[in-house]
Order: sequence, then structure tokens, then C-alpha cells
Amino acid sequence: MSTANDKKTVLDPFGTTVIEDYDKLYAEFGIQPFKPLLNQVPNPSMYMRRNVIFGHRDFEPVLNAMKNHEEFAVMSGIKPTGEFHLGTLMTAREVIYFQNQGAKAFYCIADVEAYEDNKIPFEKSEKYAAGNIADLLALGFNPKEGYIYQQSKEQRVKDLAIIFGRAATLATMKAIYGERHIGLYLAALIQAGDILMPQLKDFDGPKPTVVPVGVDQDPHLRFTRDLAARFRRKYSFVLPSSTVHKIMKGLDGSPKMSKRNQMSYFTLHEKPETIARKISNAFTGGKPTVKEQRESGGIPEICPVYELDMYQFEEDDKEIINVYGDCKTGKLLCGEHKQRAIENVVNFVKEHQQKRKKYVDKAKELLQANS
Amino acid sequence: MSTANDKKTVLDPFGTTVIEDYDKLYAEFGIQPFKPLLNQVPNPSMYMRRNVIFGHRDFEPVLNAMKNHEEFAVMSGIKPTGEFHLGTLMTAREVIYFQNQGAKAFYCIADVEAYEDNKIPFEKSEKYAAGNIADLLALGFNPKEGYIYQQSKEQRVKDLAIIFGRAATLATMKAIYGERHIGLYLAALIQAGDILMPQLKDFDGPKPTVVPVGVDQDPHLRFTRDLAARFRRKYSFVLPSSTVHKIMKGLDGSPKMSKRNQMSYFTLHEKPETIARKISNAFTGGKPTVKEQRESGGIPEICPVYELDMYQFEEDDKEIINVYGDCKTGKLLCGEHKQRAIENVVNFVKEHQQKRKKYVDKAKELLQANS
Repeated sequence: MSTANDKKTVLDPFGTTVIEDYDKLYAEFGIQPFKPLLNQVPNPSMYMRRNVIFGHRDFEPVLNAMKNHEEFAVMSGIKPTGEFHLGTLMTAREVIYFQNQGAKAFYCIADVEAYEDNKIPFEKSEKYAAGNIADLLALGFNPKEGYIYQQSKEQRVKDLAIIFGRAATLATMKAIYGERHIGLYLAALIQAGDILMPQLKDFDGPKPTVVPVGVDQDPHLRFTRDLAARFRRKYSFVLPSSTVHKIMKGLDGSPKMSKRNQMSYFTLHEKPETIARKISNAFTGGKPTVKEQRESGGIPEICPVYELDMYQFEEDDKEIINVYGDCKTGKLLCGEHKQRAIENVVNFVKEHQQKRKKYVDKAKELLQANS
Repeated sequence: MSTANDKKTVLDPFGTTVIEDYDKLYAEFGIQPFKPLLNQVPNPSMYMRRNVIFGHRDFEPVLNAMKNHEEFAVMSGIKPTGEFHLGTLMTAREVIYFQNQGAKAFYCIADVEAYEDNKIPFEKSEKYAAGNIADLLALGFNPKEGYIYQQSKEQRVKDLAIIFGRAATLATMKAIYGERHIGLYLAALIQAGDILMPQLKDFDGPKPTVVPVGVDQDPHLRFTRDLAARFRRKYSFVLPSSTVHKIMKGLDGSPKMSKRNQMSYFTLHEKPETIARKISNAFTGGKPTVKEQRESGGIPEICPVYELDMYQFEEDDKEIINVYGDCKTGKLLCGEHKQRAIENVVNFVKEHQQKRKKYVDKAKELLQANS
């Protein structure tokens, strides 16, 4: 176990204290490390450069399409059960990044999943959906080069689910999703439909497709790749690829942001004062006393405030490196860092909320157009 | 067990040797006996009069609608995996009977089930479907007062399946269908959608609905009734009713007609000579020697040739009673009975095949109209 400890002592602004867990993913689950591909990506995203996207499955076909200006697609979506938070912000930014690199972009409002998993009726989903789409547009998604749709109204994904159903054994479903009702398994099949729909004739046929996922979503991608292989003869599917990103810690130091824990996260639509208070109260990698911290430095690797910079609110890599160094050497104290973070976040959120207002009507119009 | 034997000795042309099994269905599974309702039915069908329809679930709402000339529906369908045989002929006739009594008739081409259960691609189903619909029309189904559709193209039944999925536990599905792939469970949910679609707003809302089923199909109706109760608040469903008919024995004396056993059944599209040969070779309730049979009579209760009369090819109840009596008393020998049966069946089949030709184009047109 000395290896893991050794790694912790390596100075790496884009590392993480739990990197040994990510190493396990490479070895046990076959997620491939992204770093070896990084210098081949024509215009790598912030997440790629910072090793937030630390892994992938079979990214090469997408990479080749990017390099050779060939057709490819990006697919992701949102479960319309609430407002945009830092997790959905991350996937939205990944989709927009690939769209800007030339991908046909598909963004799914997973209202069937919201119903099967969370019992949210479609009518209620639709209200959140309009807001979610407005967020997506405010972040820069181009609807002219993309397709936004609701699962409940998109016959093609439902029909793919019916086709895929024959190949979905009970054992597989239980292994991935546990012992659940049939509706949830059906939602999983529909999600496989979402991922493979970009390759149907209606969308100009087979093409490399990248699905940016959090590491917790990887089993679903494996499942979809298996289905794509099973039905390759019928549809000529290219097996879908993924990029795999790390998951942000909760602001309160919990391992993961969670709706059940209000202080662990914020949405893009909370009042700036509330957001500021949550960041003020955040857990940090600081030492018990100022004196101690000045002497031996903080631990950015375990600090959610540092992650706010890394994952979302500091666009300049150099600035990240500075913050990391200043924290490590005890130059930057937690209070000061939190003040800067609050300023960055609140500026972003205010500006985003302004922009978003302009897109609400357009969002509703897009919802209507595809229903 | 003397009760069962006692029953066997009762002279009942509309009885059956395995009536103790049907009694078990009343006691254990809650299928209700149909006989007590018979004299209330305004114009009972041949199957009702002959106790072929021996049971029902909750038939009273349908009965009341029939008596009071109120709106009600009948729903059944066919798995398009082959030509019409004696089983599908029976349900088709039941649907047509209720249509003639004033029901809105729904007839479903269960191509999703054919795919999930038998791996038949939709394109292949469609070929059989056109023929099956031509049969239905030749038998007297009135498409103007009915709705014929394919599951794969009817969004409403798929959408009901998605809604119902939340309430379908793995335990229930396994209990009814065994350990199967998810697609088969999905087909079961779609079938529940088929049964309840006649009650959607698009079809003028909630109404009593009767599903004529073979006794082996009863578990599915129970499942659908449970779902209808679960979603009653949302859709105001009237719980669907059923009539339950007995299953014909195989011509060769096997307990059930089966595609795996060519001599056990015939379709309406085999050559008359082939059908005649199968009936000639049929198992009967006759005695080893003519002498013996003249003395102690045959056993119509176990005789598939007698069932051909009872279930399908003898419209006159009096004639059935005569045959039964003549067999019991040794007046009618098996050879003679078979000759009569062959004549009846071949006449019917030839006439049906002629009629059917005229409906093939109309059938294709109906398929196109709803796709």
C-alpha cells in the first residue's frame, strides 16, 4: 500500500488523493486511461487537460473523426427532476465542447427514467425540462447543430428498447441495477436507445459516438456496448465510446454531492447569497490553525473549494497551478481562497441566470417542436 | 375423489372428462363459473351455450352493458407467427360474436410478442399479419366497427407499457412468465396496454371490456386487472373482464394442439386432402372392436372428433346432442363420424379459403392505414 501513499506525496495539481481508486477502474473494469491520448486531441477541453476526464472506453474512433474532420456524434442528457447543478453543468459543458469540435449533438430529457426511477409524472418533468434546456442553451449549446428531445415522445428510442429487450437477460439487469421493477429495466433499455439513436438512418447512419459520463455511469455504457455488438449486423452500429470524468466531492466534505444533503451542493438557480453561505461553510484541506497552515501548507487534494476552481469556475490552467502551489506552501489561506471562490461562482451564476432568461421561450419552443 | 368419477358418469353432451380440473380453477384461482350467467345473456354464443366458455372473470359489467345497450368493448388478437388454426379461429369467432352484440372490437397483431417470444422480425410478422387479417374479415369481422392494429406501430400501447412498468415487480413477472429476458416482460406490459387501450380518451374513455381467453391465458388477465386497479385513479379504468374457454385436445389425442406436432392440428390454409387425412388418423373415444362399441358405446368425452363438432364445425346444438347420444349408445361408429366430420370441415375450409381471397387487399389496406 506504500504505492498509494507515494502517489499522495507527488505534487500534481490535477491529481487526487483517491487516485488509487481510479487505478482500480483501469485494472478491474477496463476503463482506459485518457492521458496517453491527450496530446493527440486537436483542441483538448479543460476537463481533459486537468485529468478530470481521467478515463475513456474506446475513444479512438471519436478521436480519429475529430482529427480527420469526419462525422461523429456526442450524446448525453439530464433527468428532469430539478434544476441544473454542478454535475449536470459538467456533462452539459462536455456535450457543448464536442459540439464545438464538430459533433452532431444529442441531448435527451430522460423523463421516462425520471418516471420509472423517481415516480415523476411526465407533466411535471416537462416543467423542469424547459428550464434545463434554457440552461443548456445559455451555456452555449447550438440547437441548429443538435437535437434535444424527451424520451417519452421519441418513438425511435422506445422502439430500440423493444428491439434490445430480447438481448437483456435478467442476470445482466440485476447485476447492473439490482432487483428492481420492470419499468426501471425498461428505462435502462431506453437509455441504450438514446445512446444508439444517433446512428439510425434518420440521423445519417452509423458513426462514432461519444458519451461523456461520470465514472458511476460506466456500467450503463458497457451494457449499451454489449447491445450494440449484439445488434451490429442489423444496424451496422459503431460501438459507442465514452469519456469518463471524476465526480466532485460534496462541499461539506462528503464523498459526493447529494440532493439529500443541501449543504453538499448548489444549483445554478439558488440565490447568490445562499451559494455564498454554502461555500463559506465548506470543508477545506486547511490546517487547524493559521500558524500550522503557514508552516506546513494546506491539502488541496481533499479540498472541495479547490475542486470548484478545478472543475468549473477557473478557466485558466495557470491560475489553478498557482492556487495549488500557494495552498501547498501555506501562502494561500482557506478564508482568502473561499472569498475568491465565492466571487468567481457568484459572478458566473449571476451572469448565467441573466443569460438563461433570454432562452426560456426558445427552450419551450424546442420542446414543442419535437413532441 | 369419487366426486370426479361420479361426474364422468353424468350424461352431459357439453361436459368434459377433465371437468375436475376446471372445478379447481374456480376454487383455487377465482375464475367464476359461466353457467349461472347464461340465461341472462341476451343472445348467447355457441360457445356459451355449450359450456365451452365455462368460466369468466367479472363478466357482469359487460353483461349489463349488453342487456342495457350501453357502450362496451371486446379485445383480442393474434401472434402473427403462422396461419389461422383452430385456436385463433375460436378467439376470432368470440370477438366477432361480441362485435355483433354491439361491442367496439379491438384486434391486435401481437408482433412485439412474436419478436420477444419467438424472435420473429417485424417485417416477417407483417406478412403473416395481412393473411391473418384477411381470415378475420372472411369470418365476419366488421372493420368499420373495429380497430385492427400492430403493437409495434401503436404508440398508445407502448406508452401504457411504460406507465405500467413502475408497478410490475420482478416477483410478479417471474411468477407468471418464469425467469425470462426483459423483452418478454416488456411484451407482457404491452399486452396489458392492448387490453386497456380501448378505455383511453382516444376511444371515448372508460368502458367495460371483455377479453375472450383460453384458460391458459388467465394469469395474464389477472395481471392486467391488477395494473388497471393500480392506475385506476389516473385513467378511471373499469377493470377488464374475461370469458374463459376450454382448450381443444390435439387430434392425435395429445392434451393440446401444438405446432411441434403436425398431426395434432390443422390450419385453415392446408390442403383439404391433408386436413382429411389428419381427421382420418385422429384418435377417438371408440372401442377396440365394432362389436364392443355396438354393445357399450363410445366415449365422446375424450374424443377429438367430437370436439371438432362441439367447438367449431357443427352449428346446430341439436345435432351435437344427437351425435353425443348416438355415440354413447353405440349407434354411431367412429369411421362414420369421421366421414361426417371430414365433410363438414372440408366444406367449411373450402368456402373460407374462397372468401378469404377477396379480403387480402382490404387486409393489406387496413395494415397500411394504421401504420
